[in-house]
This record gives sequence, C-alpha cells and structure tokens, in this order.
Amino acid sequence: MAYFISVDLGGTQIRAGLFARNSTTPLKVERARTRADVPGVYERLEALVASIWPQDGPVLAIGVASPGPLNPHSGVIIATPNIKEFRNFPLTEKMMARFGVPVFLDNDANLACLGEWKFGAGQGHHNVLFLTISTGIGGGVIAEDKLLQGFHGLAAELGHTTVWPDGPLCGCGKYGHIEAIASGPSIARYVSEQIAAGRESSLSGEKSLSAREVSEAARRGDVLALEAFSRAGRYLGLAVANFLASFDPSIVIFGGGVSRSGPVLFDPFHASLRENCFNPAYLENLQFANAALGDDAGLLGALALVMLSVPDN
Amino acid sequence: MAYFISVDLGGTQIRAGLFARNSTTPLKVERARTRADVPGVYERLEALVASIWPQDGPVLAIGVASPGPLNPHSGVIIATPNIKEFRNFPLTEKMMARFGVPVFLDNDANLACLGEWKFGAGQGHHNVLFLTISTGIGGGVIAEDKLLQGFHGLAAELGHTTVWPDGPLCGCGKYGHIEAIASGPSIARYVSEQIAAGRESSLSGEKSLSAREVSEAARRGDVLALEAFSRAGRYLGLAVANFLASFDPSIVIFGGGVSRSGPVLFDPFHASLRENCFNPAYLENLQFANAALGDDAGLLGALALVMLSVPDN
Repeated sequence: MAYFISVDLGGTQIRAGLFARNSTTPLKVERARTRADVPGVYERLEALVASIWPQDGPVLAIGVASPGPLNPHSGVIIATPNIKEFRNFPLTEKMMARFGVPVFLDNDANLACLGEWKFGAGQGHHNVLFLTISTGIGGGVIAEDKLLQGFHGLAAELGHTTVWPDGPLCGCGKYGHIEAIASGPSIARYVSEQIAAGRESSLSGEKSLSAREVSEAARRGDVLALEAFSRAGRYLGLAVANFLASFDPSIVIFGGGVSRSGPVLFDPFHASLRENCFNPAYLENLQFANAALGDDAGLLGALALVMLSVPDN
Repeated sequence: MAYFISVDLGGTQIRAGLFARNSTTPLKVERARTRADVPGVYERLEALVASIWPQDGPVLAIGVASPGPLNPHSGVIIATPNIKEFRNFPLTEKMMARFGVPVFLDNDANLACLGEWKFGAGQGHHNVLFLTISTGIGGGVIAEDKLLQGFHGLAAELGHTTVWPDGPLCGCGKYGHIEAIASGPSIARYVSEQIAAGRESSLSGEKSLSAREVSEAARRGDVLALEAFSRAGRYLGLAVANFLASFDPSIVIFGGGVSRSGPVLFDPFHASLRENCFNPAYLENLQFANAALGDDAGLLGALALVMLSVPDN
C-alpha cells in the first residue's frame, strides 16, 4: 500500500494524519502540543510525522498546512505571528532531507479553501471564494479549478485588504483592513471601546470580551452587541462586493467561529452585499455556504494539496 | 494560407484586422465609425469583417474585444454604457451564424491585459495585473498564465472596487470606487469642484476641464492640479495594495491616457503603495511597466484570445 501524510500546524496543536492513497479517511491521526514559545517546534513536528510513518509501504508525499505568510513555491515560512522560531524557515527543505519524500506547503486558509473545494462545500465549483473569520480573517481563492497562489505565493490575503482607509488599526499595523473590523477580536474590541466611551450594554463590566459573548448578547437583544455585528456585517458585505468584482466566484464559503454567528452577522452582510455589488449579474446563481470540513480543514486541505501535486492522483 | 480576424469594438470606431495564422503583423486593417447612437452598429461591424475576409484561405476564428460588462462564456454583451443597442446581445452567436467560424469575445480591458502578456510589456510573466486608466478604470489579471474570467466572466472589474466608502459617486452609481477618484474625468471633476468651492487655480474660468489640462497645469506647478493628481495617486496606491494582496502579481502594467501623467501621479502612487502594502514581500522583484501595445491593444488582445482558443496555436 502507498500512503500520503498530511500535517496541520497550528498555534496550539500540531496534527498529522496518515492516509491511504486516494482515501480521505485517515488511518491514523496523532496530535502534539505546539508549545509555540518553547524552542523545538520543528523537532516536535518531525517527531509527530515519524510516529505515524507506515511500515508496510512508501509515503508518496507529505503536505503541510501552516500559518503564513509563507512561500509555497520555495517551501519557506516567512514569519508566523505565533511561532517565533519560524522566520525564513525552510520547512519543506528540512522535511525532505529528513524523510526523503516530496513535501508541499501552503498557508492554512489557502489549504482550507482547497480542501473545501475538493472534499467539502465547494465541490463541483470552478471558481470559489473562501473566507475564514475567527481571530483573524483568512482568504483562499480557486480560479478555474486552480488554487490562486501568485508570484510570491501571497495571493488571496483577503483579510488584509482595505475597506475603510480611516478605519481601525489592524494587527498587521495598517488601518481599515476588513480583519480589523470583522474578525472576532475586532467585534469584541468595538463593544469594549463603546462601553468605555459610556455606551449602555448588558456586557458592561465584563473584563475582556470575546466575540462569542458579544454574539450571545446580540441574540439576547443587546443593542450595542447587535450594532457591533451589524457594523462587521456591513463592512464584510463591502469587502465581499470587492472580492466578487475581483474574482467573480460561483460560491462564497465561510469558515471560522465568527461565521457561525447567524443572522446578527449575515442579515446586515447580505443587505450590504446587495447594496455594494456594482452589477447584479455577480449575484445571479451565486451560492453561499458554510465550510463543511470543520476542524479537519487543514488536514484535508494539505491532503488535497499532495493529491493534486503528485502525478496519477 | 489560414487566417485569424480580430475586431476592436470601441465607442467611436470599430477596427478589424486580418492576420496570417501565427503572425501578429496585420495583413489588412479596416476601420468604420461606430456611430453608437445610430441603429445598425452590429451590421456595421459585420460589414467591416466581411470587407477584409480573405479569398485565398480559411479564417480559423474571429476574436472580438468589446466594452463590457459582457459574458465571455456565452458571448453575450450584457450592456455597454455607450452602445445602447447592445443589451443582452448575443454577439458571438450572430457572428458565428453569419461567418460560419468560431467567434470569441471578451471585454476590452481583459483583452488588453491578455495582449500585453502575450505580445507586450508582460511577456514572460505568469502573474500580471493590468490597469487601464482613462475615462474609466479597467482591469485585467493573468493568474498562472491564464486570463482570470470568473463564473460570469466578470472577474477583474477592478475600477469598481471600493477604496473609500465615503468617497465620490462613481459612474456606475456606487460610491468610492477607485474609478470615481483616479480616472481622468474624476481628477478633472475634483479640480472643478474645488474651484467652485473658491480654491485658487490657474485653471479657474475654464468651462469644462479635461484630465490633460489638469496634468499640464500640474506640470506648471499649479497647486490645486498637483493636489488632484496626488489624491488620485494616493488612492490608486491603496487600490493596488489591495490588488497585490488579492492577486500577488510579478508585474503591474498601466495603460490608458492618465497613466502617461508621469511623476505627478506616480510619485504619490508609489509612496502610497509602499505605505499601504501590508507586507513588503509583495514588492520584492515586483515590476512596473507601461503598456506597450498602445492603440493596438484591443486588436492584438483579441488576436491573442483566438490564438489561445484555437488548438495548435
């Protein structure tokens, strides 16, 4: 039997899965804590892969999903905000030297998009826009059955596109990115700032708010919480209108915790999208879907990457 | 001998060129006035094509560059602002019925991009961003050696992406699109509005300003004219920062009259791009170029389309 291995490298845990060639059901999945601040993340990743290495047949290739920015062409992780030791880190080169098989790397949002397209909510579509909304906003694009990567492998970093030049500061240091308005922490920050400025809310007094708490308050009818999601939804609609004009997909797939907020986010989103979409033709037969792969998006996306990269698959 | 025919349909003139297969030097080019407001635009186009039809060999295919929005997959022109008779007009179907050969259609900006990539400033690049800045702003994208078209064929309508939600009204009816700030008429409108509001300028008293007049005044040192170009350049830098995050090209090609404004536009543009680009990695080895095909962009772009669409070319 021949195998693939896929790895999902996250800020809190590393997961590695062993798959029979042409199967998406893992034969084995092992986990390790990333311990991002403790030296040796790469060694822990290597040990985890070694621990699931099969004894009865070759591994054809390994796929790795990692936080970016990274260069999928060279296999180098440029810098990950959470894992400090990965700065210009030649991950695929080191793994190929260790394991003697081809290793493919791309960023987690791109690979979640690829996974959703190949195995999840985007199956059968040729042009896919994927947005994951959680602590940040990540993007991925399939353009005519191909993952959009770009010259430096930095395409579809859609969370860091500006929709409001005078808007709030983004984690990246620029202003008015959609991530700075509609990510979970940005929604919670807006509520905290408004409370600090004297606004009434059932959330007053909470020390550090989470997007989930704001979402629950919104569902209870808290006016400020509703406003925070409405604001996020409106700018998200503006951002997606821009992405439609750029990529013209046939499906928009939402992943990440914030995307499970329901109508408090998506009613304002759809109203804003209709208002801001410059030509109604973009919306004809356009589908919206929730990501279907859940926690397995990284693992299955990295599997899709190796399946597509290794001939005869 | 076997031939291709390409057609450049514009608001003021229609041009048709006859090319020997595998040659980019036209054997014949004929022109006709579009007379966009006079019924019979399609018939004039048909007659023009018939007038260059070769007698000594087959025409393999016809390519047509037209203003959009249009659907390149179905060959239907949805609506062109200038040519009123083209509303849901099945151009390729009618031409195929008349001439009995395959006909391919795409919008003028997309085909100018394709032409620049295949024959002009973008040769050798795999990821190209093309922007034409004149009376409007049109976009085109090559992603890994393929023209980005999208589900409805409406991808890369980059002039109609929002960079300033509270910004000026766009010709399309929405607000704050980059076309509403940095196109020629938008630059001239800004100066007129400022003069009407009491600002000093050497241009005061001019009835209806053109971007060219503003550009000449800027070169003479007119403070208001300089400010108008600086404002356009700054927002253009913001827009291109968004496009880099979306498409990650290796070259940005500028076409259209406004792109020949020189440093009054491009100094503020580059400063703004560096400021707004969220990761300096996008700028590594990124090239900037002027369009090389000039007035032939449409004709050669439509030729590139048929060359790429007909097998064995």
